[in-house]
Amino acid sequence: MKTLIKNVHILTMDEQFSEIKAGYLVIEEDTIVELAPMTTLDEKRMAANQVIDGQNGILMPGMINTHTHVGMIPFRSLGDDVPDRLRRFLFPLEQFMTKELVGCSSDYAIAEMLLSGITSFCDMYYFEDEIAKSCEKMSVRALLGETIIDMPTCDSPEPSGGLFYAETFIRKWQGHPLITPMLAPHAPNTNSPEVLAKIIELSRQYQVPVTMHVAEMTYEMAEFEKAYQKTPIAFLEELGYLSEPFILAHCILATDEDLASLAATNGKARVAHCIGANTKSAKGVAPIKQMLDQGIIVGLGTDGPSSGNTLDLFTQMRMVANFHKTAHQDRSLFPAKEIVYLATMGGAKTLGLAEQVGSLEVDKKADITLIETQSVNMFPIFDAYSALVYSANASNVEAVWVNGQQLVANKELQQANLKEIKEKLYQAMNTFVKEAKKRAAL
Amino acid sequence: MKTLIKNVHILTMDEQFSEIKAGYLVIEEDTIVELAPMTTLDEKRMAANQVIDGQNGILMPGMINTHTHVGMIPFRSLGDDVPDRLRRFLFPLEQFMTKELVGCSSDYAIAEMLLSGITSFCDMYYFEDEIAKSCEKMSVRALLGETIIDMPTCDSPEPSGGLFYAETFIRKWQGHPLITPMLAPHAPNTNSPEVLAKIIELSRQYQVPVTMHVAEMTYEMAEFEKAYQKTPIAFLEELGYLSEPFILAHCILATDEDLASLAATNGKARVAHCIGANTKSAKGVAPIKQMLDQGIIVGLGTDGPSSGNTLDLFTQMRMVANFHKTAHQDRSLFPAKEIVYLATMGGAKTLGLAEQVGSLEVDKKADITLIETQSVNMFPIFDAYSALVYSANASNVEAVWVNGQQLVANKELQQANLKEIKEKLYQAMNTFVKEAKKRAAL
Repeated sequence: MKTLIKNVHILTMDEQFSEIKAGYLVIEEDTIVELAPMTTLDEKRMAANQVIDGQNGILMPGMINTHTHVGMIPFRSLGDDVPDRLRRFLFPLEQFMTKELVGCSSDYAIAEMLLSGITSFCDMYYFEDEIAKSCEKMSVRALLGETIIDMPTCDSPEPSGGLFYAETFIRKWQGHPLITPMLAPHAPNTNSPEVLAKIIELSRQYQVPVTMHVAEMTYEMAEFEKAYQKTPIAFLEELGYLSEPFILAHCILATDEDLASLAATNGKARVAHCIGANTKSAKGVAPIKQMLDQGIIVGLGTDGPSSGNTLDLFTQMRMVANFHKTAHQDRSLFPAKEIVYLATMGGAKTLGLAEQVGSLEVDKKADITLIETQSVNMFPIFDAYSALVYSANASNVEAVWVNGQQLVANKELQQANLKEIKEKLYQAMNTFVKEAKKRAAL
Repeated sequence: MKTLIKNVHILTMDEQFSEIKAGYLVIEEDTIVELAPMTTLDEKRMAANQVIDGQNGILMPGMINTHTHVGMIPFRSLGDDVPDRLRRFLFPLEQFMTKELVGCSSDYAIAEMLLSGITSFCDMYYFEDEIAKSCEKMSVRALLGETIIDMPTCDSPEPSGGLFYAETFIRKWQGHPLITPMLAPHAPNTNSPEVLAKIIELSRQYQVPVTMHVAEMTYEMAEFEKAYQKTPIAFLEELGYLSEPFILAHCILATDEDLASLAATNGKARVAHCIGANTKSAKGVAPIKQMLDQGIIVGLGTDGPSSGNTLDLFTQMRMVANFHKTAHQDRSLFPAKEIVYLATMGGAKTLGLAEQVGSLEVDKKADITLIETQSVNMFPIFDAYSALVYSANASNVEAVWVNGQQLVANKELQQANLKEIKEKLYQAMNTFVKEAKKRAAL
């Protein structure tokens, strides 16, 4: 199977930021095999099975969401402006989550991500096996980790039961072409040092990455200061976390010493920057300029749909521009193309997928997003990166391919039916509410 | 002509934030004549000429854009991340603007605003008469002012020529049912004190409001400090600006004393808050919490399409939430419903239109926006305000009415053709580039 995508403005997002202003790209099976200017196209010789006219749209690598919780669609728009929502709202509600609801929510969240041009993501939640099955069904690329936390959860009556779940989960999914299992301790302050030590041991044993919320909460920082006179990152470093592939979500409160430690890992420690969720919850602006200056790898994340609300990176890209320019009082910092890099190659490097995806280059896997430029918000375009960061939104995503398979065409899912997914989620939410009420009454 | 809009979640945005979760609204000619719960609807008795099923969408007042420059679409995505872009880029380019280009740009910008649910706006630019004609043709509500500035401009070879243009303009358009002419000095530091004094005199003479960029630039503040040991707002107060209806755009650098002066006007001085443009250009976050606490009227603005990029208030609402929660380190500040208020009633009060529009109430003019909730980003909705601020984008706007006339249906313009508007603008831009090159060579 050979697909030709023609008449597109190609942003390769390779290290030279190569662009082809009027170009074409060829996919063969799961791989990009050719990209070149339209002037060199010989369509007859090409003999593609499928030809797609991009109509001067922007062709870019599929975007990469480095931190989310796909099981949380049922909580979107609930208590958005409530203080300490995590402990007052979400932890109690999540006690009642079911396998069915997580599966339905995951289908919905993946649909939303695909429709907004995201082709890979990194997830931490409960019933992660349902999420893996959902990813397989929806044909997306993902790093998935069962949450490990020192309290009873919806899928484990024993505190830290996620540890056992995780081991089974890793054994089951390791080696899958699209799914990478990983370890996902919730946070440094919600796991005992013994469990944290066991997790890093498992990471070495199975050769899987770890992801964790780190340096996100002021109370997390205070607890570590009080108990150990250390930052959480310094504490984790002692446990060996910085010598394994480690995706740190948030890092809002990372200190200069923390950053030096992360930089010294030479790419093992990477940061999932969730500017939208972090600033909506008034937690602050993570120091990603300092991180990038020191060579720390940074990707962008939406966070879960109850924290970040929409699962698209357009919202995040715009926030990255505005927040970091303002924080540094310099409008020339974080120019649009560097932000698009964070959403693509930065994300691929963060997830350890840069050999396969993150840029449009020959021999890379065909994870691709086509943005239409017909809509009213997309004219004129003097700079395609600017148009993506400052003008585009998820509704401009025209087509999406993952691993060579077209999953979105004409702004609609091709392998799944959004209406059915929504209806199933709606039913599962109704059941959840009834059951939660019954169980809460006991 | 009687139109019934049924099966909608109505956010009235009246002073009690009244909501009707399953309701209907009736428009007769240009006016809202009824709104009530669906349970009380008698469709037969109603005998509407047109019935629109809102399918559980959100019905809200048309949004109000309190500050923009509709002539600037041709410069969108040009030099976004360049320092001091105004003086290095835009002022020189604008020397070559033509009447034709401003008219075409205005048609396009109004189309974009309508498609994003904006029904009224406040504009300051050149060839403002073309903009007024464009508003009349497109049937939108607007406050319009010709820019007055102490240098030669594209429509006036003499510095401050806008003063003369403005007087003719006001005489021509005063009394128009949708268009309110006003005076629009560019900024305190780009007009002489004599011209500024003359402007406020004209404002009194013609009983028209004034709008101006104020307390936006650090160099503006420094110049006034140096020349007068005063802030620009204190200087304008002495000239009498705070005793007339005055829409101050930006006010990023307003001091506590400035805010006290604005508050003391009891609603005459109002602020157009343009958070997206202000933070993209790294100018800072205007102290609108302090303003609102002191009773100063605040509305939201997109700023021009080269500064704010998209002409929609969804982007602005999300930025207001994230920036002000973060600035005050409190996630409970600026809850979603207060932000929706700023985009609707706050805007109406800012523009002096609150008697006519800004809320859905019987006897108000029918300026209305319907948001669909079928798209993937709009489920679930536990809180309609949250969904608008944290999830929605311009592409969710389903239908729009201005003064009782339906201008958008099924996400498309009804009285104008977007493709034609775009084609005409594209041609005018080509002509502009050719002419500008010729004139620059002289």
